[in-house]
Amino acid sequence: MKYNFKFKEYTPKEEAVYGTVLTLGNGHIGIRGEIELEPTIYGTTIAGVYDYAPYFYREIVNAPRVIGIQAFFNGEPLSLSTQRLLKYERELNIEDATLKTALCLETQNGTNIEYESIRIVHGKRKNIVLLKFAIKASEDGILTIISPIKTDVANPSYRDDITVRHIDVEELKAHEDYIYAGTRTLDGKYKIGIASSLVSKSKAKRSFLKNAGGISEILTLNVEKGKSYEFTKYITIVSSESPEVKEKAIRELQDAKELGFEALYTEHKNYWQEVWNLAKVEIEGDKEAERGLAFSLFHLIQSAPINDKISLTARGIHGFGYRGHVFWDTDIYALPFFMAVFPKKARDMLKYRYNNLDAARENARLNGYEGAQFPWESADDGYEATPPLIPLDIVGKEAVRIYTGEEEHHITADVAYAVELYYRFTKDEEFMSKYGLEIILEAARFWASRVEYESDKGYVIEKVIGPDEYHEHINNSFFTNLMAKYNLLLAVRYFEKAKKLGGTWHETVQRIGVSEEEVKTWTEIAEKIYLPRQIGGVFEEFDGYFELADYTVDPYGLGEKRLPEEVRRNLRKTRLIKQADVIAAQYLLKEQFDLETIRKNFDYYIVRTTHASSLSMPTYSIIASWLGYDDLAYDYFMKCAFIDLNNIYGNTQDGFHLATAGGVWQIFFRGFCGIDVKDDIVEIAPRLPQKWTSVKMKFFFKGALVELELKNDEVKAKVINDRRVKIRAFGKESSLGPGDEVVLRG
Amino acid sequence: MKYNFKFKEYTPKEEAVYGTVLTLGNGHIGIRGEIELEPTIYGTTIAGVYDYAPYFYREIVNAPRVIGIQAFFNGEPLSLSTQRLLKYERELNIEDATLKTALCLETQNGTNIEYESIRIVHGKRKNIVLLKFAIKASEDGILTIISPIKTDVANPSYRDDITVRHIDVEELKAHEDYIYAGTRTLDGKYKIGIASSLVSKSKAKRSFLKNAGGISEILTLNVEKGKSYEFTKYITIVSSESPEVKEKAIRELQDAKELGFEALYTEHKNYWQEVWNLAKVEIEGDKEAERGLAFSLFHLIQSAPINDKISLTARGIHGFGYRGHVFWDTDIYALPFFMAVFPKKARDMLKYRYNNLDAARENARLNGYEGAQFPWESADDGYEATPPLIPLDIVGKEAVRIYTGEEEHHITADVAYAVELYYRFTKDEEFMSKYGLEIILEAARFWASRVEYESDKGYVIEKVIGPDEYHEHINNSFFTNLMAKYNLLLAVRYFEKAKKLGGTWHETVQRIGVSEEEVKTWTEIAEKIYLPRQIGGVFEEFDGYFELADYTVDPYGLGEKRLPEEVRRNLRKTRLIKQADVIAAQYLLKEQFDLETIRKNFDYYIVRTTHASSLSMPTYSIIASWLGYDDLAYDYFMKCAFIDLNNIYGNTQDGFHLATAGGVWQIFFRGFCGIDVKDDIVEIAPRLPQKWTSVKMKFFFKGALVELELKNDEVKAKVINDRRVKIRAFGKESSLGPGDEVVLRG
Repeated sequence: MKYNFKFKEYTPKEEAVYGTVLTLGNGHIGIRGEIELEPTIYGTTIAGVYDYAPYFYREIVNAPRVIGIQAFFNGEPLSLSTQRLLKYERELNIEDATLKTALCLETQNGTNIEYESIRIVHGKRKNIVLLKFAIKASEDGILTIISPIKTDVANPSYRDDITVRHIDVEELKAHEDYIYAGTRTLDGKYKIGIASSLVSKSKAKRSFLKNAGGISEILTLNVEKGKSYEFTKYITIVSSESPEVKEKAIRELQDAKELGFEALYTEHKNYWQEVWNLAKVEIEGDKEAERGLAFSLFHLIQSAPINDKISLTARGIHGFGYRGHVFWDTDIYALPFFMAVFPKKARDMLKYRYNNLDAARENARLNGYEGAQFPWESADDGYEATPPLIPLDIVGKEAVRIYTGEEEHHITADVAYAVELYYRFTKDEEFMSKYGLEIILEAARFWASRVEYESDKGYVIEKVIGPDEYHEHINNSFFTNLMAKYNLLLAVRYFEKAKKLGGTWHETVQRIGVSEEEVKTWTEIAEKIYLPRQIGGVFEEFDGYFELADYTVDPYGLGEKRLPEEVRRNLRKTRLIKQADVIAAQYLLKEQFDLETIRKNFDYYIVRTTHASSLSMPTYSIIASWLGYDDLAYDYFMKCAFIDLNNIYGNTQDGFHLATAGGVWQIFFRGFCGIDVKDDIVEIAPRLPQKWTSVKMKFFFKGALVELELKNDEVKAKVINDRRVKIRAFGKESSLGPGDEVVLRG
Repeated sequence: MKYNFKFKEYTPKEEAVYGTVLTLGNGHIGIRGEIELEPTIYGTTIAGVYDYAPYFYREIVNAPRVIGIQAFFNGEPLSLSTQRLLKYERELNIEDATLKTALCLETQNGTNIEYESIRIVHGKRKNIVLLKFAIKASEDGILTIISPIKTDVANPSYRDDITVRHIDVEELKAHEDYIYAGTRTLDGKYKIGIASSLVSKSKAKRSFLKNAGGISEILTLNVEKGKSYEFTKYITIVSSESPEVKEKAIRELQDAKELGFEALYTEHKNYWQEVWNLAKVEIEGDKEAERGLAFSLFHLIQSAPINDKISLTARGIHGFGYRGHVFWDTDIYALPFFMAVFPKKARDMLKYRYNNLDAARENARLNGYEGAQFPWESADDGYEATPPLIPLDIVGKEAVRIYTGEEEHHITADVAYAVELYYRFTKDEEFMSKYGLEIILEAARFWASRVEYESDKGYVIEKVIGPDEYHEHINNSFFTNLMAKYNLLLAVRYFEKAKKLGGTWHETVQRIGVSEEEVKTWTEIAEKIYLPRQIGGVFEEFDGYFELADYTVDPYGLGEKRLPEEVRRNLRKTRLIKQADVIAAQYLLKEQFDLETIRKNFDYYIVRTTHASSLSMPTYSIIASWLGYDDLAYDYFMKCAFIDLNNIYGNTQDGFHLATAGGVWQIFFRGFCGIDVKDDIVEIAPRLPQKWTSVKMKFFFKGALVELELKNDEVKAKVINDRRVKIRAFGKESSLGPGDEVVLRG
């Protein structure tokens, strides 16, 4: 595997997109990809570091920018946007997780300056960021390098022209060979300590600068023409609630400098080699698809948090879109990849939900419900973080009212679903008995209090928003009701299991005091939960949906711009939907539907979906693959795999579309490879796109690390750790032990 | 006259205050006083350039910062906040309107750098800003000067941690010997074109930098130790709605450079000599008082707009306090100085009210009234700009509701009052007949629709806020009702006058269609307007005020901090008032009250006033002087004269207190000099503070330029232009013609 992604356009607009797609991260620190030589407001994100903000409750903080440098040759600043740019090349190597930059500038005084750099956000040492760079001039002269920790950073707010500062500077201190900035978030909850040291291979005069913009180290040296001068910027970023932030930042900086760049780089490469050893997917016959999938997984992996204090966010550590909030994107779209490839990460993300269960309980109480109601948008404290409104104009005269926080209730069932799927994949008894079970039971309690009984219909759920957010305040969303029912039945099933198994399982049930009686009610509600009518096999998305004005679109199109103005302004009055909704339920709960029913629903809804949400195409692609709509499935797969590289939604600058990245993997795994897990068996029914001759991957199932090589008519499976697994393909079943390999043919 | 104000503290907190008190301006451009060598978010204000903003409707724009420079010696940036500061002296010369800076820094590499600069915002050439500076190093080396037009500026919003950008960059262009930045406000209403050229006396290598922060010129030169190197930064700032902004900025820059700094400086000095020739006030026996008064007038004069597109704002061109909005501060507190000393400026400011009369009419209509209702806070378009609420926390959960925009209706009568006072001072028939009359009549119409009839009381005005803003939703404010009555009677009087005079006067009446009948109603309302009860001679501030809890304070104290927490939280339930209210009415309408009544009211209210508004002490000081409370009058005068130099209210960083500055002049003129104008006579009854042996000043009265020299027992008057004037003092009256001088003795 050798994937380099090269970028050669230098315009402010491209830079904003590169900022996202060239982001480097290690789950803890994110460094956006904007070039280090130009000023930008974007700096650094630290997973889990949030602060209060207007409208968005709490938002991820744009932490001090550490990656920037400023260079002067003979008093003239090097500047891509000013000087003649003879060469601009940026190269993201996702195998090593490095970002290389190579420039050649011609100064206004006629000197050619070559600049090369390599950037690393260290995979293993989570607090370390490195920038090594070399400068070569075509004339003798004086070179000055300013290496700042820029503390005057702020977040863009609901408009780009409004910014919110989240950082207070507590200390700026220059030492003999490093600088330190001690900062904290305005709410006082997080300290961020940053140490930085600029090391020159050649002797240089050293000074520093401390002002309202932050603190900088400055090196000045005489350079000879044609000779390359090398510098390394070592940076440590330590964030925590403990008071030892400073000591830790400085100690880790000194350790890093002692080790030196090369040793750190080797360590980083080894780290990523291990990562790819598990995550690598090979696609014979379609290297472009393989690249797109790898690129998606790279950004997904980079964003996976290092502990359970925060979960994966909608736009990752890449930007400020959706304010670093956690949505169902994580539980439903991104998690399956982690369950299968990095189960410990999946566990952390679900543990984040568990850690915020008290906030979810409070949320339920606040809304008049019982049990636990997860917030539609969740930040670091688990409270509802959806903005109830966002102003449309700067004066705030008009505002768009956002109801998802109040009505998009399916999130609670989604979390319960994800918990159970995780358990199905991992058989992580400890997690399930201690935490997962509690989530499922408390979520069921929520639904039991959420439904209302109507004598003619049974149990109804009114005034919700389903995945299709065009339609608000709707009654009996097919998706919501079905997922609620599933949640209730899960609770019943795992309650029974807990009774049988006793031990920790039983303790959890005891702890939250679930009674036989309560469970009986759940069963009754689940049995009598109302679903909207089905006409000609097609489930109505919600009560009354079929009465709306009809309008259809080309399934190969995307977004709302293609709609006539009149339709666009009245979306809620039409049958157009934003994203997979009925189909999403049929994907998640596929065992409840036969393929012909799914086909009828797919055929109906696919031409009524705008895909205005990036969550739409993955689901449709998987089902398209199941239904044999190969061209459509492949078209969506490729669009999703290159969603941010090609800036398909036009908002890549705000962060990476991680739900789609997780969705790309699901299209591959659940769709094209046709993999499903049932009890203790991995079922495989490959439906590879035409070009694909074979694929190869690894994943975990209940502890067994399985390597699969698939063709449409052949499944080769191997267990490469010390566990056992059963696989089934082409109607044949095989049980494999450690080291065993089997080939099943169709 | 020779007033230098020296400042020697360098701390970020002091710098923010110096930012205001060292502001230089010419009515059009304001350049805050922060030192040029350090970064700051504060730049430039341009009178009349506003943009939409959250909460504040429209706010004055923080325009690109032009005054900053950045210097490097041998690659090390000069920095006051980083390097050893051996000398820091800043000197504001208000006679020449120049700001001088002298620094000595020791670099971290042991070089001493001396820096001297002089800053000018050109008095006559309204678009020109100049910075001349010289640098001398104790070692040979390389000096780099970066001279930016910094376009990445923003306004602080309702919290300092939230900023709002108002500037879009349209063009950044470097030419051989100058740079140009073309920008516009986000609303597209104003273009701001800025040209800048850095000229070095010695040969230097020139380059430039253009990036997200703006555009800079860069000079680099080898310097010899002990030799001083001189640079001049020429800047032109042109703002208008016309498309020729750029050409004008460049042409004026070239003109300026051709003339050169010295010639421009001479012109500037001459301009200010003419200004002070009129505005100068001499106080024998108390040079400190003279300095304070001069300092106040300097900042007042600097802030007076150059046309009638905008008026004087509450905090001048000095800062962003009150967002550059225009309040009654202007009409009632600041205008009298201009009426008497620079009548053309007063006319422009009243013309601004006239220009926005249609907006005031719309405002009245919106609120269900007739005529014209001036907004409590007015920006560039004359619509109500008072924020209805301001969030108290960043999330916006709690907010303070502000009712002044909805209820502080006296502003409309205040404007009518000011119009008439201006006419009384200037006899500007053209203004009065065309514009002033229309304002007075439309304001009367407003009041006629605003009052309601109650059979037991007569005409009442309910649900208002008076000058004392502690008490909201009150009925029958003494100040408001009395001023409304005065406004109605003015309208009647000038309607009659118009009838008599015909011509333009009559046309104005015709234009807005005022009938005899309507005027009869006004007379009736004015006669029957209700005033709150009077007990023991004291007028109740509003209905029910006397029933509130009583609490008294030391009249020599200031602000709310001295109050017990319990009282402070319940101000609206007490008889404590924020500022002169009943007394303000008695000052403005003194002819309606005998001195003993005023004394009773003063004695009552003075111990119940917190002076939490900077508008309070001037009024009380004047009346104290009339009542012979000399110590108190003088104490307040001195506090007001040094309000910002001593940062008495703790918010000088947000701009200069211009109402107080105008108030200081009124204390001097109306209080200590005891000057009043009645019909065609200037009455003078000096009551100079004890230390003051004599005072000397000039002012205009009905076109005559009068020079007065006063002692407590002697009035020397001289007419120094070609007009006539009558004066009265000590019971004696004298009529003076051109060049005449008279001495009246008591």
